Amino acid sequence: MPLKLESPIIAKDLLNFSGLKHVSGSLSAKALLISTAESPMADSLIFVSTQGDLLAAIQANAGILIASAKLALSHSETGPAVFSVPSIPHAMVEILSLAETRHRRIQKGIATSAAIHPTARVGTNVQIGEYVVIGAGATIGDNVTLSHHVVVEEGAKIGANSFLHPQVVIGAKCILGNFVEIQSHSVIGSDGFGYATMTDKTHKKIPQVGIVVLEDHVELGAHCAIDRATLDETRICSGTKIDNLVHIAHNCKVGPNSRITAGFFMAGSSSIGANFLTGGMSALADHVHVTDDVMLGGRSSVTKDITTPGAYAGYPLEPLKDSMKNTANLTHLTRFRRELAEVRKHLGLTDKKK
Amino acid sequence: MPLKLESPIIAKDLLNFSGLKHVSGSLSAKALLISTAESPMADSLIFVSTQGDLLAAIQANAGILIASAKLALSHSETGPAVFSVPSIPHAMVEILSLAETRHRRIQKGIATSAAIHPTARVGTNVQIGEYVVIGAGATIGDNVTLSHHVVVEEGAKIGANSFLHPQVVIGAKCILGNFVEIQSHSVIGSDGFGYATMTDKTHKKIPQVGIVVLEDHVELGAHCAIDRATLDETRICSGTKIDNLVHIAHNCKVGPNSRITAGFFMAGSSSIGANFLTGGMSALADHVHVTDDVMLGGRSSVTKDITTPGAYAGYPLEPLKDSMKNTANLTHLTRFRRELAEVRKHLGLTDKKK
Amino acid sequence: MPLKLESPIIAKDLLNFSGLKHVSGSLSAKALLISTAESPMADSLIFVSTQGDLLAAIQANAGILIASAKLALSHSETGPAVFSVPSIPHAMVEILSLAETRHRRIQKGIATSAAIHPTARVGTNVQIGEYVVIGAGATIGDNVTLSHHVVVEEGAKIGANSFLHPQVVIGAKCILGNFVEIQSHSVIGSDGFGYATMTDKTHKKIPQVGIVVLEDHVELGAHCAIDRATLDETRICSGTKIDNLVHIAHNCKVGPNSRITAGFFMAGSSSIGANFLTGGMSALADHVHVTDDVMLGGRSSVTKDITTPGAYAGYPLEPLKDSMKNTANLTHLTRFRRELAEVRKHLGLTDKKK
Repeated sequence: MPLKLESPIIAKDLLNFSGLKHVSGSLSAKALLISTAESPMADSLIFVSTQGDLLAAIQANAGILIASAKLALSHSETGPAVFSVPSIPHAMVEILSLAETRHRRIQKGIATSAAIHPTARVGTNVQIGEYVVIGAGATIGDNVTLSHHVVVEEGAKIGANSFLHPQVVIGAKCILGNFVEIQSHSVIGSDGFGYATMTDKTHKKIPQVGIVVLEDHVELGAHCAIDRATLDETRICSGTKIDNLVHIAHNCKVGPNSRITAGFFMAGSSSIGANFLTGGMSALADHVHVTDDVMLGGRSSVTKDITTPGAYAGYPLEPLKDSMKNTANLTHLTRFRRELAEVRKHLGLTDKKK
Repeated sequence: MPLKLESPIIAKDLLNFSGLKHVSGSLSAKALLISTAESPMADSLIFVSTQGDLLAAIQANAGILIASAKLALSHSETGPAVFSVPSIPHAMVEILSLAETRHRRIQKGIATSAAIHPTARVGTNVQIGEYVVIGAGATIGDNVTLSHHVVVEEGAKIGANSFLHPQVVIGAKCILGNFVEIQSHSVIGSDGFGYATMTDKTHKKIPQVGIVVLEDHVELGAHCAIDRATLDETRICSGTKIDNLVHIAHNCKVGPNSRITAGFFMAGSSSIGANFLTGGMSALADHVHVTDDVMLGGRSSVTKDITTPGAYAGYPLEPLKDSMKNTANLTHLTRFRRELAEVRKHLGLTDKKK
Repeated sequence: MPLKLESPIIAKDLLNFSGLKHVSGSLSAKALLISTAESPMADSLIFVSTQGDLLAAIQANAGILIASAKLALSHSETGPAVFSVPSIPHAMVEILSLAETRHRRIQKGIATSAAIHPTARVGTNVQIGEYVVIGAGATIGDNVTLSHHVVVEEGAKIGANSFLHPQVVIGAKCILGNFVEIQSHSVIGSDGFGYATMTDKTHKKIPQVGIVVLEDHVELGAHCAIDRATLDETRICSGTKIDNLVHIAHNCKVGPNSRITAGFFMAGSSSIGANFLTGGMSALADHVHVTDDVMLGGRSSVTKDITTPGAYAGYPLEPLKDSMKNTANLTHLTRFRRELAEVRKHLGLTDKKK
């Protein structure tokens, strides 16, 4: 179903958005909905990136079109208001903010049900939801939103303008920068998995007394666990974005502006450089170091240091191109076996051992 | 340990259950426990599917036996009450409901600690647990159970007879059908992972302003994250069952009556047809479409459309039978290498490049 | 950043710790910080396991050094207090407990906001955080800590000295032993994934009426889901430690003193013996049995019983050494294909079928 806007978008209001160029139609055109190019609706705003989508949107009597600049766009006085943009995703960042209502999900101000320790410091213009718990000596920056049931343990710090969705847990003494956003249920500062094995085969926990630091503009999905360090800190550097169900173990460091998609598992004491990007379900072994500007294909396993920037994939890890070829050949193994046996029989070579 | 029943099951009470046929023993026999075929107990009800289990259960003085119709069952006036059933799992659906007490896990009615927005609409005969939060304009259908700490954000709708376990979060405007059940901690409507990368290598979030729709009879395990769409909707169709720790990204659609086991990861804008079934830890890449009636083996990776119904597995994905053979040959690679080198040496072929 | 100690550690206080031998320096030396060997700081306690780390720590004017006994340590009246230890991890267990403050994360006693059913039994010296919910007939042992928002459903039992971090959910009737620790958001007793498929292709849930038992000294990470059994119990035996984001399905049993790292998925009705150890992201299929003293490499898939103790890896699973060799050969598949084709061409063998 299309998104019904609470207040219409008027074409002329988009003129001061970065990168938008008015091409066609009336600036007083308006959109009551946002619909998709696949299911275009009358009176809606639509992002179009193909000529076919453009035509369909016009035929559907769309109100406003945000069209990729690579399309052939002709001027017309009638029809929808058409803007050209160099990049649809960049246009979405600005235009969809008009429809974003996340700050309204909880009431203004501080819910009376919140349990805030008297020694906690809470900034100005904060939104604190129902049953939030803030521990002794914790610090909540200005303009922060802590949604319902968020727990901020003693001594933790939440930087200004951060937004924590329901039931996020921030462990004791952990530090979040400014403009951090965390989806529901993620845990910052769970204990690392560290044990000493005794002679009777039992395991005793090594107390995990370090912290986690999330720098500015870090964003995390749902159900992430970022473990606190054994001694010092686990750190996610500024601008890094992490998807759902990701595990970052104790003592790890992830460099700035990285993007980590869902199901990534990073074992202890490993590090990743800047601008890392990975497909889903990849993993790093412990004590492995990855340099800047590395890209991993999905399901990759990194068990040794990566010292050269580039694209890699597979297990064992290889340059992406090599990995794609080797992986494709996995579907020929049965044939390889048969053909190799045939060759050996042809040559009279006997199988010495299986 | 066996399950102690709060009130005994009497054999004759089972007569009106679908598919049960009384074969042997007294209809006044009763069971005080439910025990397993592996550890049969006196005075218990036991499900038996092998002749050995049947014998063991009789020797243990079981009270009531629910036996697979494929067993040789002879009539006798004495011994346990024996019923034959065409399918043990189907019999379990009905009989175990006698021992199900999930509705008793929270009190009747609405806990006084629940924070319910005055504009929310709450149906009749609901159970609402401690510290539940219901946002502005949300709708809770009749006979719904929201266990402790459930959060239903503004504008969300929960259909009749649905049951949400503790600490489930339903994001703003998301829609749940009737008879939906969600285990603890799952999140419906976390933000999708969508960013536009700027020239300075930072990433800006594309606001995720769509919703999630779970149709009737959808059931989810614990720790699932179903991301809201960027623009319109992420949809799980009616009757689909999803296990623990599953990730469904933004804009995805999963068809009706599918079964998705634990650790499944589905990247953005992909779709799956009806009656899908997958083993654990499988994954779909983004923008991939899977037709109806597809079965995947465990750890499969789907990176291209599947247009023909059938069973598949592996990475690269292949028909299940081919994949099983190729996978089995993975344990012969060391031998292949040695034998191939031997052949080439025999033939005087030199290795031009490694 | 280094860990700032709330009260200094004095060298002579460490004398009665097990395994520590004073080698050098003054027993009145003290540490105000704990720093890492990689970033040694003045006036800090440092664990050193290489000769280089030792030198760097001395040059940094560290206060107290805990040094591996395998290092060459010479006596000196000046410089930091140096202790030799047979094992750094074992020394960490004791020494880091001096800096552990987890019990301080919530207030002493029972928060007035906790919703405790009148029929629940609560032991002495418990800490119960804000908005905790304890159901009818539940039992909380002595010295237990239930952090904020923990839910203990009706009839569940928590053994003495256990510590549940924020937002852990313990399902109805589940039983936890003594000294159990569970990180945030884990769920004990979510419903198992069991369905009977009807002729119309819909699936009906088999009520999951069993329980989960966690024996003494079991420790779980964040976001784990341990499903309740269909009929009797899912059991994690004493001393077993489990990392983040782990799925244990219904009817499973994990033996004592096992260590399960992050991302492990165990399907239904499987069992594992004592002293199991696995690398990350491994998996067990359903109805598979693993004997005592088995070690699995990362990403292993166990689809058949393991009856002989030892180290294994891969999919298909093999002895670890074989698996490492076969896996390494995956990067040669493209070459194998080319060379095999070359051999066959050389011999005039035609490709009968692809």
